Amino acid sequence: MSTQNLKVIPLGGLGEIGKNMMALEYADDIIIIDAGLMFPSEGMLGVDLVIPDISYLRERQRNLRGMLITHGHEDHIGALPYIVPYLDLPIYAAKFTQKLISAELRQRGAKDKAKLNVVHSGSKLTLGNFKVEFFPVCHSIPDSMGLIIHTPLGVIVHTGDFKLDYTPIIAEPTDFGKIAQLGAKGVLLLFSDSTYAELAGYTLSERIVSDTLDHVMAEASGRVIITTFASLVSRIQQVIDAAAKHGRRVFILGRSMKEIANVALKMGYLTAPAGILCRLDELGTLPNNRVVLLATGSQGEPTSALVRMANRDPRSQVQIAPGDTVVISATPVPGNEALVNKTIDSLFRQGANVIYDKLARVHVHGHGSQEELKLLLNFVKPKFFVPVHGEYRHLRLHAKLAESLGMPGDNIFVLEDGDVLELGQEAGRIVDKIAADNVYVSGSATYDLDDAVLRDRRLLSQDGVVVITIAVDVEKRKLAGRPRVVARGFIGSRDGGALIEKCLDVVVAALSRDKKRLAERNFIEDRVRNSLADFFYKQIHRCPIIIPVITGV
Amino acid sequence: MSTQNLKVIPLGGLGEIGKNMMALEYADDIIIIDAGLMFPSEGMLGVDLVIPDISYLRERQRNLRGMLITHGHEDHIGALPYIVPYLDLPIYAAKFTQKLISAELRQRGAKDKAKLNVVHSGSKLTLGNFKVEFFPVCHSIPDSMGLIIHTPLGVIVHTGDFKLDYTPIIAEPTDFGKIAQLGAKGVLLLFSDSTYAELAGYTLSERIVSDTLDHVMAEASGRVIITTFASLVSRIQQVIDAAAKHGRRVFILGRSMKEIANVALKMGYLTAPAGILCRLDELGTLPNNRVVLLATGSQGEPTSALVRMANRDPRSQVQIAPGDTVVISATPVPGNEALVNKTIDSLFRQGANVIYDKLARVHVHGHGSQEELKLLLNFVKPKFFVPVHGEYRHLRLHAKLAESLGMPGDNIFVLEDGDVLELGQEAGRIVDKIAADNVYVSGSATYDLDDAVLRDRRLLSQDGVVVITIAVDVEKRKLAGRPRVVARGFIGSRDGGALIEKCLDVVVAALSRDKKRLAERNFIEDRVRNSLADFFYKQIHRCPIIIPVITGV
Repeated sequence: MSTQNLKVIPLGGLGEIGKNMMALEYADDIIIIDAGLMFPSEGMLGVDLVIPDISYLRERQRNLRGMLITHGHEDHIGALPYIVPYLDLPIYAAKFTQKLISAELRQRGAKDKAKLNVVHSGSKLTLGNFKVEFFPVCHSIPDSMGLIIHTPLGVIVHTGDFKLDYTPIIAEPTDFGKIAQLGAKGVLLLFSDSTYAELAGYTLSERIVSDTLDHVMAEASGRVIITTFASLVSRIQQVIDAAAKHGRRVFILGRSMKEIANVALKMGYLTAPAGILCRLDELGTLPNNRVVLLATGSQGEPTSALVRMANRDPRSQVQIAPGDTVVISATPVPGNEALVNKTIDSLFRQGANVIYDKLARVHVHGHGSQEELKLLLNFVKPKFFVPVHGEYRHLRLHAKLAESLGMPGDNIFVLEDGDVLELGQEAGRIVDKIAADNVYVSGSATYDLDDAVLRDRRLLSQDGVVVITIAVDVEKRKLAGRPRVVARGFIGSRDGGALIEKCLDVVVAALSRDKKRLAERNFIEDRVRNSLADFFYKQIHRCPIIIPVITGV
Repeated sequence: MSTQNLKVIPLGGLGEIGKNMMALEYADDIIIIDAGLMFPSEGMLGVDLVIPDISYLRERQRNLRGMLITHGHEDHIGALPYIVPYLDLPIYAAKFTQKLISAELRQRGAKDKAKLNVVHSGSKLTLGNFKVEFFPVCHSIPDSMGLIIHTPLGVIVHTGDFKLDYTPIIAEPTDFGKIAQLGAKGVLLLFSDSTYAELAGYTLSERIVSDTLDHVMAEASGRVIITTFASLVSRIQQVIDAAAKHGRRVFILGRSMKEIANVALKMGYLTAPAGILCRLDELGTLPNNRVVLLATGSQGEPTSALVRMANRDPRSQVQIAPGDTVVISATPVPGNEALVNKTIDSLFRQGANVIYDKLARVHVHGHGSQEELKLLLNFVKPKFFVPVHGEYRHLRLHAKLAESLGMPGDNIFVLEDGDVLELGQEAGRIVDKIAADNVYVSGSATYDLDDAVLRDRRLLSQDGVVVITIAVDVEKRKLAGRPRVVARGFIGSRDGGALIEKCLDVVVAALSRDKKRLAERNFIEDRVRNSLADFFYKQIHRCPIIIPVITGV
């Protein structure tokens, strides 16, 4: 029995959704679970995406034994292109996941730097003191895996993202047997998915969506247009099956949907009767009631196939026509509600009949609800429990569930990113807090974006910028000519002109009050800033960023 | 029988939620229904609020007979302070509504200009060719009214915002009798609330919230902190009743909540047993299980009482303590989800137990669901139907409901703001489209904000601004000294310095290529802009707004 302690260090995904990343440390060995990205929230102006801070890992490069990827969603693999160049370690992922990772790395030109290894359910790895085994879990993308990690202190179970669908469309259902056996032998620590800890009851099976699709395709007298997440391969399978049943052909629109469907077909995760998948140029040859279009755009992404159709974008190869039935087979990811609603409105305006989550069972989500979370806790019977994947309230509610099952509160740890939990065999405590801030990615690379920059962007977005140029004749202590102004994002041209003219008089007057100080740049700049700020606020209650440019001093 | 036609002109609230305003025109008479505001959506940078365009009405000033206000919510009265100064006409509203209007007008200094008149359910007005009668409807604010409008062409029924709560907490339930009688006699046109046309079934009665509050106050061993909409007086009544039942005192926090509660108490819409409402300085004298705090902040408003508590704001008179139970007795208004979730997370972090819509029946909304909308259509049996109050999909779904009841599609008009519907006794059609765009309000006044300004703000918010000053020696056709740069919202200080230095070399090089043209301002400006834009994009994939300031030319 070891006297060493195990360190659990969440680097992302705990307390905030997305950019999932977790480090486990024992003696000189560190393994990492997942490396996801997060999409920027409203305040993060000009940010393309957000990834975890890996400085803790970079400082311990020689201890890194390997990275384990649970599944291929962006919030679990999306950070890889940006961190692979800085972390030298082998990456282990299942076949489908590995394909998606390769594609992303290739896109970002980081492919060659990555040591990718394919694993299967049942694969066993030895990474220093950690012995890892993968087991299948049911989620909304093929090849989702949970982890069993044997450590000198005991066994750790990590669910990844999961639900307990007894009748999944493709892929194996979550492997209870294995988990239950472990539980019987005794599990030291459980990490379990908290994403839907708010929802009572059980998550419905994917099967119910088949019934809806079946019904829609039977009823629709015209074309059926369906959008869903490109990576939700099982949903694509359901669409193909329903289309086959009702003698409709399937046309796939949108780059990501086409790519993933092709990969899934080649790898056998997707099966289609011969001839049912058609090329778009064959569309004209079929009557409308023989057509199913499967398109990207379930989140109202402005450049997606569905949104271009909805907006009559000339670049779109297909246009919405009255009589079309559109099924939004997804729910909006938090933050996308407005975009999705706007898309639904546009589709209705084009004369389509739109069926979406509020109107019918067009989607079931990929995470377990409260009863499933309880069931898992009962199977695993862990000594310690750390809820993962969720905003703070989700983690807290998941912890309450565990307590309601009789688990002692002292053995449940609601961690947030950067907390360092040290576990012994009998007890654990948070011993440290490391840097685990957001790292912003913009364009091609991670780059330096401090709060001052974001604050300025917020100000600029509210009231714009006013640049005023003042030429000073230092000898004569007077202004050399009238100041000049350039304003952007400040005020419209109608009222703008007059206001700008007036503001020049204000500046001239303000500076003429202390002529003898017209040799001091700082004095002039402050005077200009203050007098203009007062003026603009009094006149129109606006506070633009004012940039004085002083020449001649 | 008249040969004239009736004109229906929605100026706001159809196709987009909020800023409800509708004009009805017959011969030389125009009446207006409601004058609401809309809160800006994400793209409307720097906009405080949005009101309807009233230019159509201003051009017909001498035909304006009166304005009818259905109830006191912002999306029905919020535009009044900004339009009252420009429209000379009497305004009719029920007692409670009128109080709220007065308060808003006073705040904005427009009180003296308004001709406010109080009406009651049953009040009858003659406004030119229009004879108007008010009838009570049940909604989430006291004194909500529907309208019966007699015209030479026939009777119009306008529901206002409504639901059919048979057991409301305060105020009268919606008056079926009156509506049914009208239906029997024949109704020309129905305007009905579409806000919840997406929801199947019936909207639950406010009563069920009482059960939840009762349960929470019985179970909670500590303080109970409840937040809801300040104007939801019936909810405040439920809180007071539950508190009384469980021997708890009620403390109200937040300006708007205090103000409205006081008004409602004075006017008798709210009743409280003597001594149950306490001043905050008495808080310390009571044990926690005798305390209920009623606070603003149901939408996560950053300056609200609850959010200040959640964030340990020193300005807050009360702090959250472990053992507190917080009830969010509301649902997030679309767009506020993130703010509300952030607040819930903060409350959990402070050790509170938080109960919100996903976990319990803490709220019911104020609008009728599909079954209620059908019931109303059946009562009224209108010849023509115009769904009102909703985004486009809500209007379209409401229209489908009417068709499903056997109403001919040609008699149902899904209008959007600015459409001019001309109705005769037998048929109607859209004859025109008038200007009904958003009018932006910022700070104290409506002001000029064209698309160019919003576009610049969007660019500034993404990548910031770079101001580069270039002094030219025209005689010598060379730069007089090294250019200077000021950047805001562009890049952080760490990587910024070096990049800025390099960009100066780029500019100098770019300009030195055509020295002879260094007398042409436009040439210099273009050269600077283009060379810097290329450089910044190549270097960090960013596109700041570049403002060249050229002196000496």
